[in-house]
Amino acid sequence: MIKKILIANRGEIAVRIIRACQEMGIETVAVYSEADVDALHVQLADQAFCIGPTASGQSYLNFTNIMSVATLTESDAIHPGYGFLAENADFAEICAACNITFIGPGPHAISQMGTKDVARETMKRAGVPVVPGSNGIIDDIESGLDIAEGIGYPVIIKATAGGGGKGIRVARNPEELKKGINITQQEAATAFGNPGVYLEKFIEDFRHVEIQVIADEHGNTVHLGERDCSIQRRLQKLVEETPSPAITPSKRKEMGDAAIAAAQAVDYVGAGTVEFIYDHNDGSFFFMEMNTRIQVEHPVTEMVTGIDLIKEQIRIANHEPLSFTQEEVVFNGVSIECRINAENPSKNFMPSPGEITSYLAPGGFGVRIDSAAYQGYRISPFYDSMIAKVIVHAPTREEAIDRMKRALVEFDIEGVDTTIPFHLRLLDHEVFRSGEFNTKFIEQYEVMPSINGGK
Amino acid sequence: MIKKILIANRGEIAVRIIRACQEMGIETVAVYSEADVDALHVQLADQAFCIGPTASGQSYLNFTNIMSVATLTESDAIHPGYGFLAENADFAEICAACNITFIGPGPHAISQMGTKDVARETMKRAGVPVVPGSNGIIDDIESGLDIAEGIGYPVIIKATAGGGGKGIRVARNPEELKKGINITQQEAATAFGNPGVYLEKFIEDFRHVEIQVIADEHGNTVHLGERDCSIQRRLQKLVEETPSPAITPSKRKEMGDAAIAAAQAVDYVGAGTVEFIYDHNDGSFFFMEMNTRIQVEHPVTEMVTGIDLIKEQIRIANHEPLSFTQEEVVFNGVSIECRINAENPSKNFMPSPGEITSYLAPGGFGVRIDSAAYQGYRISPFYDSMIAKVIVHAPTREEAIDRMKRALVEFDIEGVDTTIPFHLRLLDHEVFRSGEFNTKFIEQYEVMPSINGGK
Repeated sequence: MIKKILIANRGEIAVRIIRACQEMGIETVAVYSEADVDALHVQLADQAFCIGPTASGQSYLNFTNIMSVATLTESDAIHPGYGFLAENADFAEICAACNITFIGPGPHAISQMGTKDVARETMKRAGVPVVPGSNGIIDDIESGLDIAEGIGYPVIIKATAGGGGKGIRVARNPEELKKGINITQQEAATAFGNPGVYLEKFIEDFRHVEIQVIADEHGNTVHLGERDCSIQRRLQKLVEETPSPAITPSKRKEMGDAAIAAAQAVDYVGAGTVEFIYDHNDGSFFFMEMNTRIQVEHPVTEMVTGIDLIKEQIRIANHEPLSFTQEEVVFNGVSIECRINAENPSKNFMPSPGEITSYLAPGGFGVRIDSAAYQGYRISPFYDSMIAKVIVHAPTREEAIDRMKRALVEFDIEGVDTTIPFHLRLLDHEVFRSGEFNTKFIEQYEVMPSINGGK
Repeated sequence: MIKKILIANRGEIAVRIIRACQEMGIETVAVYSEADVDALHVQLADQAFCIGPTASGQSYLNFTNIMSVATLTESDAIHPGYGFLAENADFAEICAACNITFIGPGPHAISQMGTKDVARETMKRAGVPVVPGSNGIIDDIESGLDIAEGIGYPVIIKATAGGGGKGIRVARNPEELKKGINITQQEAATAFGNPGVYLEKFIEDFRHVEIQVIADEHGNTVHLGERDCSIQRRLQKLVEETPSPAITPSKRKEMGDAAIAAAQAVDYVGAGTVEFIYDHNDGSFFFMEMNTRIQVEHPVTEMVTGIDLIKEQIRIANHEPLSFTQEEVVFNGVSIECRINAENPSKNFMPSPGEITSYLAPGGFGVRIDSAAYQGYRISPFYDSMIAKVIVHAPTREEAIDRMKRALVEFDIEGVDTTIPFHLRLLDHEVFRSGEFNTKFIEQYEVMPSINGGK
């Protein structure tokens, strides 16, 4: 039985995990960088240890120091949260070697999903729809042209070793493709030491729809419905909601089954998210990637299902079977999350670190706050700029939007700029209200006019 | 259509009502006493007007000033909250005369339920079980002795004009009864100008179980399940929960039907609560009183049903039919509320007014905060000492208790004493955990040893 958990993270997700542990009677160990000595997760945990200087590489990514604290405190398990070490197969392996439970899937599942062409091929074999494209790396430009002809333009050229938006190029005709393959191969060789590229059809007009899955060690894999995360800026999600305005119950089942097949294909254990490109023109969907960890936006799923995902992760790590079957999962109402960051949305979302001089979070019916902020807390320029996640729950989408507006108007944060003004404009935008939008929404509509002309 | 509402109240319930209005796109008008100039409800409302000095009689109970503000601001309706004018039939009549909607039942229903022997007789005629007793006022001591013999000792002698715990006396045998009738009559004549007393069987060992009802103008009356408010100190509720650990689904239906009959007997329109004495020895229940207003503890019902009671009150006042039938009401999980007051539970719950020098409310999954407090807010000695209501929601009672503990441990309030230490001890008390307790719990168990020997 897990009696003590080290939380290898910071900010709101560390607080989130500590809360779940406290409710389960599990002791908590916080770790922190020098910059985080006053952080809320440090205050709330039963024990707290400094693991290094401000730079993440020397603290929150520091295997040695984290494992030392885990050993010193006799922690039974480590919860990695999201980011930092959450999808690091090596770290998961080290935990196993040290006989400390890594709360997440096994190293093999992490690495299979972390390598994009491997994941793509695994999904194809499992019958999960992937975007039409080449079978692995293309041999030469001629075969590239043939494949592009077959799947139709535009196509996207992707470096197999790429990631994080690098090593990607769109081609809308054979000319662009020829050039693009050359340039991408050269770039990839330089940047990643591997010139291999492959082709996929470029779907321009899509929604980001992801399915939460959860699997135990006893062969049960269940999906908990979708989250629509189409409101993004530069691939950063800003708002997430469930259910997706675009997804019907039968489509939910179809995508849920595909997500379960994806998880089962890598013998997945734990909570994970299968992200899909959803083509709302014809209802087709394609595997994008699987995140082998808890997501920032997991609360919206919790609100509509009533299932505590962090507690379930811990129970699964404790070798328990899932406490529900697929049929027992019921979806109630609508939940939306807005990420409130210390950024100035009128100045191109420029980060606005500094001290929060006044802080009062909204409350009342259907409002949940996941945050590590407080009056007097200093938002560090060294980590992400999130102040709080505001999550609402209501019977209908319209009521949820109105509740979110009310909550954000009420949210008092002084001393730093926040993205609240952006969210308030978005929530009143008729296209957002209509539910008919895709990942280009932020590019397409000037939600927040930038006072310095940027966008 | 109601477009603007004046909230004739203060504190957390004023904030609660403003929140509902904002979500519905309704403008809000706050009123406040001189002491409340910095209050949160004043800050959150669209408009705010001072209606008098600190004393409630001159401000929050000041009909003239409140009606003047309502007229001046062209408010369509007044929401009275709880306490103050909420159960004042005269005020409801004045609203009607001024053509301003009083958000609550009609004056007739208020006064019928507000006069206790009238309410008792109305309930008897409607077939709602009342505590066995005399039919109205007893004529003389001899007939009193006969009635007591018939219903069995102990009995309770109640002044018909009494209230608020005054004009009540218990008799355990004929000797005590004779004396008690005499004394109570004399007291009642002096205190209330009416010597009339009646008898009821005294049930010592009971649970306080109340049923939330809601009725529209179109003949629909629905119950929303029970709340168990047995954890009381000197008739003040401290903790409320739903479902009651003592109530089975068939008993819920039986009591729900009785509560609907009670409401229908006075042509009730709006949200109301029928309070019952529940005898957990034999499952019998008896009408205690009906509160013709929203209750402090309404959030626990909202959490398990998903129904926003304040919004429903407003929709009903707008002549709309209920948006749900009895069959559509579904109860999900367990909800508990702890009332956090500025009192010192180790010093006999002595009030602890003063400035809140640090304030950070708990957040996360399944935690709701209804409060008007903030860092720098000054708890006034002139009004009730509530700082916040902490409401939790979880799949099971055990998980809800654990969640509440976690939330209360996390709740940071400095500058004043609070009842949090009391609640934390209560939540860990094995009798509370067992669910098998009655209204004598606080008397019976020393939850919080008093440092000055008081209890």
